[in-house]
Amino acid sequence: MTEQSRTDSTDGNKRHYSHTLDLSKGKVEMVHGSGGKAMAQLIDELFLNAFSNPWLDEMNDQACFQLPAGRVVMATDSHVISPLFFPGGDIGCLSVHGTVNDVAMSGAVPKYLSAGFILEEGYPLADLQTIVTSMAAAAEEAGVYIVTGDTKVVERGKGDGCFITTTGIGVVPEGVSMGADRVTAGDKIIVSGSLGDHGVAIMSLRENLTFETTIESDTQSLNDLVAAMVEVVPDIHCLRDPTRGGLSATLNEIAQQSKVGMQVYETEIPVKPQVKAACEFLGLDPLFVANEGKLVAFCPADKAEQLLAVMRAHPKGMDAAIIGDVIEDDLQFVQMQTAFGGNRMVDWINGEQLPRIC
Amino acid sequence: MTEQSRTDSTDGNKRHYSHTLDLSKGKVEMVHGSGGKAMAQLIDELFLNAFSNPWLDEMNDQACFQLPAGRVVMATDSHVISPLFFPGGDIGCLSVHGTVNDVAMSGAVPKYLSAGFILEEGYPLADLQTIVTSMAAAAEEAGVYIVTGDTKVVERGKGDGCFITTTGIGVVPEGVSMGADRVTAGDKIIVSGSLGDHGVAIMSLRENLTFETTIESDTQSLNDLVAAMVEVVPDIHCLRDPTRGGLSATLNEIAQQSKVGMQVYETEIPVKPQVKAACEFLGLDPLFVANEGKLVAFCPADKAEQLLAVMRAHPKGMDAAIIGDVIEDDLQFVQMQTAFGGNRMVDWINGEQLPRIC
Repeated sequence: MTEQSRTDSTDGNKRHYSHTLDLSKGKVEMVHGSGGKAMAQLIDELFLNAFSNPWLDEMNDQACFQLPAGRVVMATDSHVISPLFFPGGDIGCLSVHGTVNDVAMSGAVPKYLSAGFILEEGYPLADLQTIVTSMAAAAEEAGVYIVTGDTKVVERGKGDGCFITTTGIGVVPEGVSMGADRVTAGDKIIVSGSLGDHGVAIMSLRENLTFETTIESDTQSLNDLVAAMVEVVPDIHCLRDPTRGGLSATLNEIAQQSKVGMQVYETEIPVKPQVKAACEFLGLDPLFVANEGKLVAFCPADKAEQLLAVMRAHPKGMDAAIIGDVIEDDLQFVQMQTAFGGNRMVDWINGEQLPRIC
Repeated sequence: MTEQSRTDSTDGNKRHYSHTLDLSKGKVEMVHGSGGKAMAQLIDELFLNAFSNPWLDEMNDQACFQLPAGRVVMATDSHVISPLFFPGGDIGCLSVHGTVNDVAMSGAVPKYLSAGFILEEGYPLADLQTIVTSMAAAAEEAGVYIVTGDTKVVERGKGDGCFITTTGIGVVPEGVSMGADRVTAGDKIIVSGSLGDHGVAIMSLRENLTFETTIESDTQSLNDLVAAMVEVVPDIHCLRDPTRGGLSATLNEIAQQSKVGMQVYETEIPVKPQVKAACEFLGLDPLFVANEGKLVAFCPADKAEQLLAVMRAHPKGMDAAIIGDVIEDDLQFVQMQTAFGGNRMVDWINGEQLPRIC
């Protein structure tokens, strides 16, 4: 019977350790991923502490919860954004927002999240704690619970600080049925706010650009906005958050899946002046730039004004705008009438504009 | 209207590309994670091709499925095993088995999986295809569907080939209620087969050891074995797969959560002779070595023989054995009667024995 065995006693569901984790100067070590006591301590003192909820606190290798009968939605996102901290957010809140939004874009109410961490040996525990705290706050704001997780550690040079994969579960309300193949000619295209903020915030940081006003990422959960929209207009045909690839990728994907064309109007697409300026400087097109807190909605034309009003009345949709129309087009092209009155193709970029943007 | 736009037409739900992916000599490029057309092509020609099922084929950013009312289980695992291919399996099938088993250890029937890939720039597409094909086969064998996913690419030197995070959803049958805090003094401890195979297979490969017979990983899904067990003995108190940290970590964790002690008998614990020999050579203790296709069951003593018989009648439990008893112990110690008759503590290792074993 060793001294260690005696001190590592339990108290309620809490395990005790001979030393507490050094969260100010400590680093992630290989041992934190090995399934032993050091990993249990990292989980207890960092993750359980921040995320505590009845399901996670059970400390099983899986979480168990009740769901009503019906349609359930599942979405997953691996987050590898670089840098990990940026104006307006960090990988922690982003990893919650990203998956909450993927679930919400089906019209579902997000409920439960899992989180898988891949940590690089040597990563500061203080930074990890900041990330985890940010995740916890984002989950609370969105009304979801992080109910289960996993932690792995890779050797220095085999990762990049911290990767987070989140998976979300949500419940679809009765009467809601959205899909990328449900968009039809005649639908209006609405965006919930200004485009390009996230991608430009990251790129400006990477390129060390400073502008008169800092450009902040728009990273945020949209499930409350979606709930408000669905309540008033349940027959929205499709919602999508224009993340990687931006509005352009979203419109082209949906045009192909719904076998329609799209006509948008440049003057109607909200882009902040400083984002526009930064895009010109960086050689980016705001239509191709990732967003992390905006959505595109496709709805029947006769419901568009009503939906727009609901969106504008919500703090996360104040700058919402109808930006175009879904049209019949066998070629499934997305076209934009420019500010100068011409029409140009909004093609789906093949190459990469912004690596590791989320 | 570019040539590319014209050739990239759609046919049904299929997108067409001007060239097909070069799956024999191609490499993962940064552009495959950028949200553009190259990513869509990787998803279409590699992932959708291998995993095709009605939910994934909808090609939304989330999957939607029906669940009955009741208890649902969610589990997640990030897989960073090195090397990616090993005797008996690869990271692909392992990533399915690991999460299927985490779901099944609650007594639930695993149904749906998500998969998040973090790929390193330059990783051969041919190897990725082998991994994805292995995942698909493992999912089919386990009767689960990979319904949604995500792909990210990081620069060379910021990852290690391929990391896969899988999350699983399962449904708990009526009358089943297992948990790490439900084990009581008097319960019997049963393992489903020989211990240490997975960890020793990986370590032998890393150390370039050869033995007379190749030691293969035991990686496999256990949901069918669990279903057979639950059908006959629904009141199993706890199931756990002894992965990282091995049997030792599993027994110690559960002893602490259920506030009991455990007494196991070394002569009853099945370890293959070649695994025992390799452990001696490598300086490992089979009790601390990871398994990926074995489970530990805790059940009332009066059901133990019946449960053992069911397990032995199943191809994945042929070598099942009762290895010990749960006892009252305020100190929550795990003790082992050795082959020589003495009793020793089976402590929970603090340090790391085997990094990146899963």
